[in-house]
Amino acid sequence: MIKRLKNDIDTELKAFLKETEADFALKSSSRLLYSAITNFLVRDGKRIRPILFILSYLGYTKKRTILHKNLLRASLSFELLHDFLLIHDDIIDESDLRRGKPSMHNLLNRSLNISPKHKLGANLGIVTGDILFALATKALLSFNEKPLRKENALKMFTDITTYTGIGEFIDVLNNISNIDKISKKDINLTYSLKTSKYTFEGPLVIGGILSGAQKKEINNLSKLGCILGQAFQIQDDLLDIFGAVKKTGKPVFSDIAESKKTLLIWQTYKRALKKG
Amino acid sequence: MIKRLKNDIDTELKAFLKETEADFALKSSSRLLYSAITNFLVRDGKRIRPILFILSYLGYTKKRTILHKNLLRASLSFELLHDFLLIHDDIIDESDLRRGKPSMHNLLNRSLNISPKHKLGANLGIVTGDILFALATKALLSFNEKPLRKENALKMFTDITTYTGIGEFIDVLNNISNIDKISKKDINLTYSLKTSKYTFEGPLVIGGILSGAQKKEINNLSKLGCILGQAFQIQDDLLDIFGAVKKTGKPVFSDIAESKKTLLIWQTYKRALKKG
Repeated sequence: MIKRLKNDIDTELKAFLKETEADFALKSSSRLLYSAITNFLVRDGKRIRPILFILSYLGYTKKRTILHKNLLRASLSFELLHDFLLIHDDIIDESDLRRGKPSMHNLLNRSLNISPKHKLGANLGIVTGDILFALATKALLSFNEKPLRKENALKMFTDITTYTGIGEFIDVLNNISNIDKISKKDINLTYSLKTSKYTFEGPLVIGGILSGAQKKEINNLSKLGCILGQAFQIQDDLLDIFGAVKKTGKPVFSDIAESKKTLLIWQTYKRALKKG
Repeated sequence: MIKRLKNDIDTELKAFLKETEADFALKSSSRLLYSAITNFLVRDGKRIRPILFILSYLGYTKKRTILHKNLLRASLSFELLHDFLLIHDDIIDESDLRRGKPSMHNLLNRSLNISPKHKLGANLGIVTGDILFALATKALLSFNEKPLRKENALKMFTDITTYTGIGEFIDVLNNISNIDKISKKDINLTYSLKTSKYTFEGPLVIGGILSGAQKKEINNLSKLGCILGQAFQIQDDLLDIFGAVKKTGKPVFSDIAESKKTLLIWQTYKRALKKG
């Protein structure tokens, strides 16, 4: 069922791209922008966020007939939000790879036949990310539900994005701090803000809000999202050291190269100190 | 009246910052983020966008009593959108000054006691801009109006931001193209997309949508916004060459330094060719 859902999401993503091209005359405005967005978005991904959103909505809705296509379309908002964040994150971290292919700024530089580290790619990438953020909100707005539920869902969507930004800001700052000055609590807070919120809590809670779930149920969804998020991040950090590039699509040891303070690196450091 | 409105907007901006601090525990999460946002937002500005939004709404609404504070709060969405775009724009253009004070990335580097051109300021600035974009949507969502009108207003808001991004993308690309390859039409299109849309058309049209204005009236507001926008951009380009730093808060000749293809520079180039 998850596999079928993932295929449906991928198909809807293509339909969305086609519509966006038509709505904003993207191809005639900038062929480069259109091809870069398309290339980046249709790459194979796990689609965790849209899937969680759809499952949460279906789990709580009392509707008997649901427009599957419309639900898929709304779910794209979480994929687009994710893409926007990845693009900016890769610019900040100067990462060359994403999902086994060039990161957005790298892709833009390649398309323009300029060196991979040229600032132009990053400049265009910043703007491309911004556009995807706007399109993410638009996708969520297109959902057929009671206007008040949609309003509450959108409020949560903007709150979650704000928290994600705060988490990313703290993370970038932590990476230039000495590891001695960072506590386990700091790292866990950053995990929660930067990753859990928009990956787990957001899709689950917003699916719940739109379906008309009770407040208590929404609180539970929020707690579940938090825990799933922390587990996911720890796994992600492990993969950075022990994963295979072929499988993850990301280079290994990039956390160490970027002096990231992951829980794994922090624990290693603390234990190394004790043995010394 | 405009002066009083501007003062009211400034007061509401401070109230919004205070609430945002409380909502997201900004100060305790990152004192730097909080102080940078506050420093940037409370600077003296013309507040053209919120003022146009308020005037448009008041011009078309049939309500007899209007919550002035709530209208001011919604109007902030256009100021926050503007701030978000300026922050990213200054990173792209590597501009040091904004509103007579350090641009966001420059301000962040200064606060961290690192060199003004360090990449860290730009990295943190990208994220700060993203946060302001989320907060802009939140401010618009807080308006007390019929949910369907709000939904349409938000759709327009995301469309306008998308167009602005497309305009910015084309502009960044134009600046590396040879001036011979750019037509007057290209420049005018970029003007319209990059500046008019969110500065004039957006506030006027969205004010109209929220007030329940007729479709014909909204079309007229859109046309008015387009024309005002082009006039504004030409004036802005003139100020870049002939303006006083003290008055504009921006360095002179920055368009030339960044090899921007403004209408003024394009015309000068074409005329110089004729004389040659």
